[in-house]
Amino acid sequence: MALPNKDYSPGLEGVIAAETRISFLDTEREEIVIRGYNLLELIRLASYVEVVGLLLWERLPTPEERAALERSMVESSVPNAIYDILRRLPSTMHAMDRLRTAVSALAGFDPEANSSDAASEIARAPRLIGQIAQIVANLSAIANGQEPQSFVPGRSFAENFLATLVRRSVTPAEVRAFEQSLIAYSEHELPNSTFAARVVASTLADVYGALTSAVASLKGPLHGGANEAVMYMLLEAGTPEGLEQLIRAKLARKERIMGFGHRVYMRRMDPRAQLLKEVLHELIRQRGEGHLYADMCQRGEDIMRAEKGLFPNLDYYAAPVYYLLGIPIELYTPIFFAARTAGLLAHIIEQHRENRLYRPRVLYTGPRGLRL
Amino acid sequence: MALPNKDYSPGLEGVIAAETRISFLDTEREEIVIRGYNLLELIRLASYVEVVGLLLWERLPTPEERAALERSMVESSVPNAIYDILRRLPSTMHAMDRLRTAVSALAGFDPEANSSDAASEIARAPRLIGQIAQIVANLSAIANGQEPQSFVPGRSFAENFLATLVRRSVTPAEVRAFEQSLIAYSEHELPNSTFAARVVASTLADVYGALTSAVASLKGPLHGGANEAVMYMLLEAGTPEGLEQLIRAKLARKERIMGFGHRVYMRRMDPRAQLLKEVLHELIRQRGEGHLYADMCQRGEDIMRAEKGLFPNLDYYAAPVYYLLGIPIELYTPIFFAARTAGLLAHIIEQHRENRLYRPRVLYTGPRGLRL
Repeated sequence: MALPNKDYSPGLEGVIAAETRISFLDTEREEIVIRGYNLLELIRLASYVEVVGLLLWERLPTPEERAALERSMVESSVPNAIYDILRRLPSTMHAMDRLRTAVSALAGFDPEANSSDAASEIARAPRLIGQIAQIVANLSAIANGQEPQSFVPGRSFAENFLATLVRRSVTPAEVRAFEQSLIAYSEHELPNSTFAARVVASTLADVYGALTSAVASLKGPLHGGANEAVMYMLLEAGTPEGLEQLIRAKLARKERIMGFGHRVYMRRMDPRAQLLKEVLHELIRQRGEGHLYADMCQRGEDIMRAEKGLFPNLDYYAAPVYYLLGIPIELYTPIFFAARTAGLLAHIIEQHRENRLYRPRVLYTGPRGLRL
Repeated sequence: MALPNKDYSPGLEGVIAAETRISFLDTEREEIVIRGYNLLELIRLASYVEVVGLLLWERLPTPEERAALERSMVESSVPNAIYDILRRLPSTMHAMDRLRTAVSALAGFDPEANSSDAASEIARAPRLIGQIAQIVANLSAIANGQEPQSFVPGRSFAENFLATLVRRSVTPAEVRAFEQSLIAYSEHELPNSTFAARVVASTLADVYGALTSAVASLKGPLHGGANEAVMYMLLEAGTPEGLEQLIRAKLARKERIMGFGHRVYMRRMDPRAQLLKEVLHELIRQRGEGHLYADMCQRGEDIMRAEKGLFPNLDYYAAPVYYLLGIPIELYTPIFFAARTAGLLAHIIEQHRENRLYRPRVLYTGPRGLRL
């Protein structure tokens, strides 16, 4: 046994907790490295399906592999029992809690659920990514008493996902904006949800348990829940002036402003936020509407930089993109999870390949020597 | 931002990951400290309900508080929709996966589910402990098409839990043996499941998400799953000689022997295992049967000490106790979780009271500078 040392970093800040070949936030060079590639280049030039292949296979897929991968993702089907279970959950239940329950239940319909060897986990991954996207895309519809829709073979994964979310036909520009957000959310080193998934996976628990824990984590207001909070703030504010007043009032009360700041990006803007800001502007240009949201976001960004020296994170610019696409707000965090499933699976597989049980120690500050 | 240091301890071995006033494994003095008390003394002299009060309130309850706490735990009811959902899961699904789904779904029936303030979390805790025990006690019955049974007001929590598990009336000696196992499992510092719960709770995610992650972790063969694996090994062996052959054959193939070794207890026997061994012997004495299992366990213990220098852990002696009580083997790990819910809730509440988001860094060993 290694004796606990006296150094204690709350929240494990600055502590290395995993060795990985998947991704790295290089804050010095301002670069998010994904399997050797710059994430911004992937957002600009790649498809989401290519990034899924890269994450799972450690290299970009060939065109044939890419087509086969997209087919597996699109043609995967969700067991009817999962939708039955979702119907039995109260519609007032938080969408992430409904998603968490569905992901946990999925294990029951996979005969290989308890297997944690890398080969079967890689083989199952495309189906799982497709199932989770379909569950997310149908979450609000089911809560509203509508029938779930399956993805349509022959249509791309991104188009299927968006069209099922908004239940209308969508334009190529809309699909591309949505797909770029999926790539931006696909993988990001070791945030709380990925760390939670690796911690759970290290008991050799199965993929479903590890993913369930990641949903649980991502729901938290300090993590994925931020993108929804940003949109509610923008809607409450209504105008750039309204947002300025709202932010100044919150700052005066020392309240946290959602969508700003990041444990790792402290001195500069999250590079993903910068790119999603461009995606937002391009989407507004294509549609010829929605300038209000770009103006509000810019005002908020300016105030927070001047007043607090804080920069927007990805959630801040993903929120108005999703809003303009017409996606129900309660699904913003579930979409984040669906996009991140690819990165999470890569981490779970890596953890299972070279495993060491996570079992840290504590600094005990309670009483000693009490007797009954 | 603190820059990642170069020290990397796989599995966070020896790393302090939380400050706590709840419990501490003092391996030097061979003592498990629970809120200042020695766990072995609690197992010998206290009731499970007293330990629940101690964990939640940081002091032992008065007799009146204890009676009220036990009433809340016993009289809590499980929403019918939870049993409906469990009926929709395949009976082949792992019991811990069914439990994980049920705990996640419970959030939908708690109007305060999203609250993470300590006062409401402490107030909800007794009901949650009672609900989870009732779900665990009915898991196998529901999978077998039987109706769930509610706990009976006026009977103790431990008697209700055991009687519902085995669906027959139980003797005071049986109840006491079972209750002592619950206390032994109630809290144990920062094992993987408790760490997973704290990691998830640190996003300010709710209690249900944090508990769901702990179920997911505890299922793992390297963690809670060990108590079931021990029992299957004992049943496969059949006799002390059979167990000796089985263990020697596994050792020759360099396979792991379940129920031995512990990340923290390396030089001595897990003190909880020592006490559960006494509980097993006392249960056998009272019933006048079951000597075979004590003899097998002793043989296995002797061989492992001689051959590998490894000592039994709690799971090794909990398994035959549960077997002699007639509890379905698939419920051993769910019972571990039900007993640990009290400790987990104490940790989740403590994490929410003085929160810092868990967000460690990685050691990146993958490629750099690739271009599309």
